[in-house]
Amino acid sequence: MDKELMKKVAGQEAVKYIKDGMTVGLGTGSTVKYLLDALGERVAKEGLRIIGVPTSNRSAKRARDLGIDVKSIDDVDHIDLTIDGADQIDENFQGIKGGGVAHLREKIVAINSDRNIWIVDATKMAKNLGSFPLPLEVTPYGSTHLFKRLDDMGYHPTFRTNAKGGHVLTHADNYIIDLNLGYIEHPHELETILNNMTGIVEHGLFLDVVDMVIVGYEDHSETFDAKRK
Amino acid sequence: MDKELMKKVAGQEAVKYIKDGMTVGLGTGSTVKYLLDALGERVAKEGLRIIGVPTSNRSAKRARDLGIDVKSIDDVDHIDLTIDGADQIDENFQGIKGGGVAHLREKIVAINSDRNIWIVDATKMAKNLGSFPLPLEVTPYGSTHLFKRLDDMGYHPTFRTNAKGGHVLTHADNYIIDLNLGYIEHPHELETILNNMTGIVEHGLFLDVVDMVIVGYEDHSETFDAKRK
Repeated sequence: MDKELMKKVAGQEAVKYIKDGMTVGLGTGSTVKYLLDALGERVAKEGLRIIGVPTSNRSAKRARDLGIDVKSIDDVDHIDLTIDGADQIDENFQGIKGGGVAHLREKIVAINSDRNIWIVDATKMAKNLGSFPLPLEVTPYGSTHLFKRLDDMGYHPTFRTNAKGGHVLTHADNYIIDLNLGYIEHPHELETILNNMTGIVEHGLFLDVVDMVIVGYEDHSETFDAKRK
Repeated sequence: MDKELMKKVAGQEAVKYIKDGMTVGLGTGSTVKYLLDALGERVAKEGLRIIGVPTSNRSAKRARDLGIDVKSIDDVDHIDLTIDGADQIDENFQGIKGGGVAHLREKIVAINSDRNIWIVDATKMAKNLGSFPLPLEVTPYGSTHLFKRLDDMGYHPTFRTNAKGGHVLTHADNYIIDLNLGYIEHPHELETILNNMTGIVEHGLFLDVVDMVIVGYEDHSETFDAKRK
């Protein structure tokens, strides 16, 4: 099983949905990298002109290198389409994102987009969410108490650390706590609980957000209409 | 009407609730200043020993100057009592805080405290909340879109700016949006709406948080048992 090939297939399929003149939200991660490669080819060959709104510094740099006009979300009045990856997608097309630390920006871009497409390799699809740890971006101040609270709630939290053992920091210098839940029976109920907890800046549950999911296999892709299933 | 005197009366009354050996959350603002003055006197005269957990750099410095042992919230395992101000308190002892930019830290300290006392001058008491603008600490990224959304919802948002016209920044380098609501009919419903909005790090509604409210007048104070009214 060649996961890189599966990601490439998904990225190359998704690029077809980008039209000349669009303002496009550009996600983050290893699958989006293939989308950006394919997008760069269209920019070079077809003279495609778009405005890219990146969700990370990495995607911003890559897009600029490909000759894409890059703007901050606060410098555009709307986003036509956002294409992003996901860490896990369930059979109702609800998702977990944040393995790459960028889920706050990704969610902000997503909710301000007219349309959202997720691109994933086939291994990301699951019956239920939860086997992938759920990332929380949390305020450092008081985070030891928040951690304890989450632990007491049975959510099996772990602080995400870097190679040196320090806290991984987000764009906004917040910490990441991963919840090792195993199985999320009721995603919407969990979302409500997390939304109401002080100190959680944003969680990685992306519910009722995506319009289309493109799943890459080694030799083909599958495209799903995800909205209002 | 001498508001400073009213604040002083409230601060001096509240200091009585601090006992030797306690870990005490120390709020922020002009009324808390009088509490800290009175606390400094007790430390000097009685040799009172407490651990102070300040919610702002200003309160931390002031506490240290008064000889109080100051610790970060993440270096204490619990807080016995927190005394803080409030910008507005309604007849059900629900509050608005955040006029002083510190409401994220203040809320984190409050929810991790066994007991909370608010100290205010009498002008802060109101039948309903809302005539004081409701502060939101928001992520700068995407904040123009969040602002527009809040405006469309009829919440009359304004970005809080400094003397030079730039954004006021919080401890966490976030922006403040004040909602000029006039009258908040259902605080809990508004809280739910705001908790569910991406980009709002924390709002200034402090509902069902306070245990005791001490209201200062020029010549006396009134103390209310606020919990589970």
